[in-house]
Amino acid sequence: MDETPMPLDQAEAKQAMDQQEEYRVLTSTLTAYTSYQSLATRNVVNVRRRKLERMQNPRYRELAQSLFTKSNYLARAQHCIDTNTLLISQVAEVAAASFGVSAPEQRAEWAACDTVSAEKVVSTLRQAVREWSAEGAAEREVCYGRVIAEICRLFPDVYDVDNVAASGSQGALRPRNSVRIVIPGCGLGRLPLELALRGFAAQGNEFSFHMLFMSNYMLNCTLRPQEFAIYPYVHSQSHQRSRDLQLRAIRVPDVHPGQLMAYRDQHYPDSPSGELSMVLGSFDDIYLKQDATTNNSENEQGQFETADVVATVFFIDTAPNIFRTLEAIAGLLEPGGYWINFGPLLWHYEDVQQGEDNDVEAGDNDDEDRTRGLELTLEELLELIPKYGFAIEKHESSIPCTYTMDEASMGGFVYKCEFWVARKL
Amino acid sequence: MDETPMPLDQAEAKQAMDQQEEYRVLTSTLTAYTSYQSLATRNVVNVRRRKLERMQNPRYRELAQSLFTKSNYLARAQHCIDTNTLLISQVAEVAAASFGVSAPEQRAEWAACDTVSAEKVVSTLRQAVREWSAEGAAEREVCYGRVIAEICRLFPDVYDVDNVAASGSQGALRPRNSVRIVIPGCGLGRLPLELALRGFAAQGNEFSFHMLFMSNYMLNCTLRPQEFAIYPYVHSQSHQRSRDLQLRAIRVPDVHPGQLMAYRDQHYPDSPSGELSMVLGSFDDIYLKQDATTNNSENEQGQFETADVVATVFFIDTAPNIFRTLEAIAGLLEPGGYWINFGPLLWHYEDVQQGEDNDVEAGDNDDEDRTRGLELTLEELLELIPKYGFAIEKHESSIPCTYTMDEASMGGFVYKCEFWVARKL
Repeated sequence: MDETPMPLDQAEAKQAMDQQEEYRVLTSTLTAYTSYQSLATRNVVNVRRRKLERMQNPRYRELAQSLFTKSNYLARAQHCIDTNTLLISQVAEVAAASFGVSAPEQRAEWAACDTVSAEKVVSTLRQAVREWSAEGAAEREVCYGRVIAEICRLFPDVYDVDNVAASGSQGALRPRNSVRIVIPGCGLGRLPLELALRGFAAQGNEFSFHMLFMSNYMLNCTLRPQEFAIYPYVHSQSHQRSRDLQLRAIRVPDVHPGQLMAYRDQHYPDSPSGELSMVLGSFDDIYLKQDATTNNSENEQGQFETADVVATVFFIDTAPNIFRTLEAIAGLLEPGGYWINFGPLLWHYEDVQQGEDNDVEAGDNDDEDRTRGLELTLEELLELIPKYGFAIEKHESSIPCTYTMDEASMGGFVYKCEFWVARKL
Repeated sequence: MDETPMPLDQAEAKQAMDQQEEYRVLTSTLTAYTSYQSLATRNVVNVRRRKLERMQNPRYRELAQSLFTKSNYLARAQHCIDTNTLLISQVAEVAAASFGVSAPEQRAEWAACDTVSAEKVVSTLRQAVREWSAEGAAEREVCYGRVIAEICRLFPDVYDVDNVAASGSQGALRPRNSVRIVIPGCGLGRLPLELALRGFAAQGNEFSFHMLFMSNYMLNCTLRPQEFAIYPYVHSQSHQRSRDLQLRAIRVPDVHPGQLMAYRDQHYPDSPSGELSMVLGSFDDIYLKQDATTNNSENEQGQFETADVVATVFFIDTAPNIFRTLEAIAGLLEPGGYWINFGPLLWHYEDVQQGEDNDVEAGDNDDEDRTRGLELTLEELLELIPKYGFAIEKHESSIPCTYTMDEASMGGFVYKCEFWVARKL
């Protein structure tokens, strides 16, 4: 945000442009979702079918065809893609309807999608494994498990006398549903749900429409556990041990959010129910305290003005401007509140190409857009945190953790993650 | 290779085109090497300097500047790039001279380089750490160590009576310098050197000019161990713990090839010296047995017609056509010879974009160029190997191994590699 308030007509023009851009991204994402079946069929099945048909060397062709025939690979891959489409198309239907752009004449105006956006649909399937399948449990335990345990330790359930006594908690005890937790970059919403299940007022925040569509569906539209079979690995041809492993089904969701919340309300009547809410958009834009003089605060409905905990998991390195993100986290927290972080430093904008040097000189008010160049080392980040009014109370380093890794595959990226609990002074 | 011989005029035209393309790739790679200093300065230093100068928010700017000033980051990064340039420019000078394109009027005609080619220069620095530094020793031990131990076990040094007795070797014993080993995709040549040091006739083969330039320099032009300090991590802004670690020097080479060979000759006079040779070009094109009727065999000078061992390390998944590569390996080996493999299945052409379906229909004799679509699973590959006349005599699975990983960084890709020894029947 600029320090100087924008003149009103400029501000209006910017707002109109922002809305136009948001509409473009929204409908382009819907296009990516609805193009999944044809694009995946082309990239996985058709490329290989043509390759087999057109191989010149008769011995190579015979060998390749006998391998692919034996596993019935192409027909099975097509079946996997078609089955994935059942979930993906329902997700898109619900999203289009909820944003009011599902009528045929509106569909005709949806923006086209690029390759990156199309590939992100595939990655939401892998994200669904991570957050909403039994197969993802081990990966979740390392990151979410640590964060949840820490929050529960800091805020014991005051309606459960044994727990409170055992926790040795000091200071004023509060009912958990008065403890407001914001989870920026919450992906498909599993962490907010887990915190709500434990009685907290959990607010997820997510910027990506690709994620938002799927999280909305998982949290609000699934009918029962194991409702969908998905085949997230059909698109990956490398690191595969066998076709059976590549084409294995993963069941989602592993739990049904509504059933779980109802079960909790029924079995723990003494403890007030937690709350779960979701806020769309950029964490910085939404939660950063607006300069009072600009008077252009357009807070999303229902967003927390302040919070007791901000829980960032694999989030801070997605920041276009880490200084702004730190300011937003610090500004959102009540004095005494906690910032709990788990994740690596894979700066998401490091590889964004920004054209020639000349282009960089051209613009002026372009700090937020031109995002490359603010990648900090861990040491620098840890030096910066106290300057935003935090005291680091707990810090664990180099925790091995994967992210949407296929555990049956022949390799994956292993992050050595940092975990810290910082208290707002 | 096609089954039918090409008419002579077509063959001549193809040969002329191939030479033109080779010249283009050669000079484009030289351009990438000689552009390193300016491109790296722009991407690492200038982007960040401008970012700091132009940040709008005074508090962010002050914090960022104080962090970067404290570590003197930009000046140190520039120093690292300038020091890297000392090695890189010497490598390019030697390469340009050895290919006869170093005169000023020839330089003026060098082809331009694209972004990918420019980035590959940076990756040769990381490759130099892997193959030619003390820091790379652990990574080398997992892959090269296994392969070397196996080859030494299969062919004990007959001039060392104790070794032969201890090995329990059966069959006819041979002097090691009669054992011809081909190492396809040998990168910077460390594995061929290690095998030559142990007395074998080792022949490296490499397709990439980026690698060839650096391997030639490491093997033939370095003057002493630790001659160069390089800073391979200055270009990576993610996964960094501190500026000191990011900007640490790695010394190359850890050993001096010429000194080692001389030492061996001096201290083991009874055991004939090993031999080391390098062959440029695509492994399949060069070593695949030519159809006698085509009579267009243009074998590189000095290449082995047959071999006793083919040692592939992180190689087979670079194949544009794995069937052709298997045929080349099988064809090159003498009956009773060994194919020793270590590596993952990261198919290098999986993500090559091939345009629309229509394009795929357009071409005809395009099997070799259109490389996507032949990615096999491990299970399929293991089923295929016997069909090329091999018996797998030893097989170890899921060996964790990294590739050019910065061991001080906050994460990296961990491959679960396969190791096998297959005997040609």
